[in-house]
Amino acid sequence: MPVHSKRGETLSHSPIRVLMPYARAAKAAGTHVYHLNIGQPDIQTPPEALEAIRNNKETIIPYGPSEGLPGLRERVANYYQSFAGDIAYSDVFVTTGASEAILFALFSCCDEFDEVIIPEPFYANYLGFGHTSSIRIVPIPSSIDTEFQLPNAEKFEELITPNTKAIFLCNPGNPTGCLYSKEELTKLMQIVLKYDLFLIVDEVYREFCYDEVFTSVLSFREMDQHVIVIDSISKVFSSCGARVGFLVTRNKEIQKVVEKYAQLRLCPPYYGQKLAEVCYDHADEYIPQARAEYIRRRKVLYDSLRQIEGVQCYLPKAAFYNMTKLPVKDANDFCKWLLTDFTYEGSTVMLAPGSGFYQHKAYGLDQVRIAYILNEHDLSAAVECLKIALDQYNNRNGHEGNNYFLSEKSPNRVYAPTNDM
Amino acid sequence: MPVHSKRGETLSHSPIRVLMPYARAAKAAGTHVYHLNIGQPDIQTPPEALEAIRNNKETIIPYGPSEGLPGLRERVANYYQSFAGDIAYSDVFVTTGASEAILFALFSCCDEFDEVIIPEPFYANYLGFGHTSSIRIVPIPSSIDTEFQLPNAEKFEELITPNTKAIFLCNPGNPTGCLYSKEELTKLMQIVLKYDLFLIVDEVYREFCYDEVFTSVLSFREMDQHVIVIDSISKVFSSCGARVGFLVTRNKEIQKVVEKYAQLRLCPPYYGQKLAEVCYDHADEYIPQARAEYIRRRKVLYDSLRQIEGVQCYLPKAAFYNMTKLPVKDANDFCKWLLTDFTYEGSTVMLAPGSGFYQHKAYGLDQVRIAYILNEHDLSAAVECLKIALDQYNNRNGHEGNNYFLSEKSPNRVYAPTNDM
Repeated sequence: MPVHSKRGETLSHSPIRVLMPYARAAKAAGTHVYHLNIGQPDIQTPPEALEAIRNNKETIIPYGPSEGLPGLRERVANYYQSFAGDIAYSDVFVTTGASEAILFALFSCCDEFDEVIIPEPFYANYLGFGHTSSIRIVPIPSSIDTEFQLPNAEKFEELITPNTKAIFLCNPGNPTGCLYSKEELTKLMQIVLKYDLFLIVDEVYREFCYDEVFTSVLSFREMDQHVIVIDSISKVFSSCGARVGFLVTRNKEIQKVVEKYAQLRLCPPYYGQKLAEVCYDHADEYIPQARAEYIRRRKVLYDSLRQIEGVQCYLPKAAFYNMTKLPVKDANDFCKWLLTDFTYEGSTVMLAPGSGFYQHKAYGLDQVRIAYILNEHDLSAAVECLKIALDQYNNRNGHEGNNYFLSEKSPNRVYAPTNDM
Repeated sequence: MPVHSKRGETLSHSPIRVLMPYARAAKAAGTHVYHLNIGQPDIQTPPEALEAIRNNKETIIPYGPSEGLPGLRERVANYYQSFAGDIAYSDVFVTTGASEAILFALFSCCDEFDEVIIPEPFYANYLGFGHTSSIRIVPIPSSIDTEFQLPNAEKFEELITPNTKAIFLCNPGNPTGCLYSKEELTKLMQIVLKYDLFLIVDEVYREFCYDEVFTSVLSFREMDQHVIVIDSISKVFSSCGARVGFLVTRNKEIQKVVEKYAQLRLCPPYYGQKLAEVCYDHADEYIPQARAEYIRRRKVLYDSLRQIEGVQCYLPKAAFYNMTKLPVKDANDFCKWLLTDFTYEGSTVMLAPGSGFYQHKAYGLDQVRIAYILNEHDLSAAVECLKIALDQYNNRNGHEGNNYFLSEKSPNRVYAPTNDM
């Protein structure tokens, strides 16, 4: 029997999806599962966009242009004017989700063994995209104690080697809910220009900033040749299954290379693009409503989480995630236990274990990512469920853990007595 | 300014799409272009499938399962029973077009620098997929003189090295229209088993066989652990823009690896999958009609092509392509000239230069791939246009070519006096 590839063997499973079999089993056993583990919004897709698909009169669904439908590229270019400055139609490539845009960016900018610096914790699939493109991801730690703010420019500089080709950010941050300020990005720009690096920024959550103004790296015109932005309709228009993303850059040489990768896979999905066109037509009405909804949910989540003893959390500035430190030794075990051994009033909670968002596998063991993508009522019930679960988990008979102590600095902050971080 | 990757530089442009700017310019100048260059059928997508999308009542377009929607995987598994034997639901992975299925197969089976043997001429993008996955494509020549039949098993054996990991076929063939027989595949199976190789077969044209019965490699149960089939709804259901393909294998170890690559890109497009479900529900009525239409077109193309002096062609057994030898030295130049310098009654023809389908760049210089994807009337007019064009091209003032001679063996066969093949 022929043997699969070594790279296929070493590619990691998605840490978010690894618990899915347990969730399926829990549901099969009749347990209701509150999904706080995945960035799948429950907000409706813009109804006008859905209606446009219902009214579609095409009799053939043909290949479209590799770069995307002209009508969509134009709308996206227009939409970018307000926060990015002048963006041409030809600066926008439609991709099959942000996933494909990230792969195109890595393949176009980097060769095998090139290094890309990424603040950690980061969206777990970045590791997989790095693996697929044979680049080396160099994590730069950020901490829950500073609410995951961007590491100092000097910290980046320390990690730069002759093999460093790019810095990769997610802003606003998944899994952190962090928003990088104009000042932080300006300092980083000096490094990018000094070392002549690419700056690839995943901005898919840009419309969900709740307290401060979002700054796009595309607005730093000194970096026109360095910046590549990753975007998607998945989160902003609650259209994850449409598989429509974007790669935006003003660098013409990169455009020529991206065009080749785009031609290779022929075209992005037709229906998703038609949906996206109408989404952008209605962005001005739709997005503020979605944003207001997430602000309400953020408050519910934050207010209820901080009532739980031993939990360390913060008010996330953006996106719809936060990283939360739980009074457990190993959140992987706790998250699995929630699905296999716990119910409260017929329900349980599914969370994404924090260590999956770190390359340093010993980091984040006591953290979870919580996505506030449920309505306020369900979110409240889910956190109540989590509270009961933590209590039960830490008071199990014969439980070897429970050796936690409260920090003197903060009554809500606990440290596991391990050498993990 | 940071410099793009070397691999991005060395990735080839799609030879099929490289003429597109000239076609756009011709159209802008008012010329009608008959597209015989691209495998985009003009046959209608199954109307019931389009109607199902119009009746879709979903209010959110969410992520689906990474492996594809259960309803679609079940339908595809059922559809496979008749020609492949028993296929389980879990043997079918839905992908974003056949393109993604090919990449998944190469990444899952092969490591960097592994070798994959492919009969040439082959679908040009295989080169790009090989480039992206850092494997080495080893072409094995097949000839227009034998209508591109499968090279002898011994010829494959000669090319096998310790680095050979797989044999890759396209059956029925793009660009050749060739159909590999059960006998040919049985002989190849001996090699596959003897050297314990993977056998990856792109079967997207399997429903378009016109004279003989199609044999799927999945029906050779001795090769259950070796075979991976690539499939797609694009051609068979005239749904190229839906971006729905499949990877089918009974090898559980490969399934585990494919699952990881599938999770990495989250899921295939939702609407395309819903369309595909209904396509398979209506396959029994739809496919025979489409097949009959291509049989009529094949006759029109073949009958009219063989009337042109100096043209060598054959009656293709399957798919909707044939490779045709033209009385020109360099079909790249001729195909460009058709778009930039020629019109006949306001029209011209776009063809795919044959050399783009060969890795050996000196091969196929006098060949073109012709796709018979236009209706009979247009196809007739297009070939008439081609005939006039060849005459004009070869009688241009100061034309350096024209030094062709007819072979004594066949009045319709010409050889360019070059050392190219």
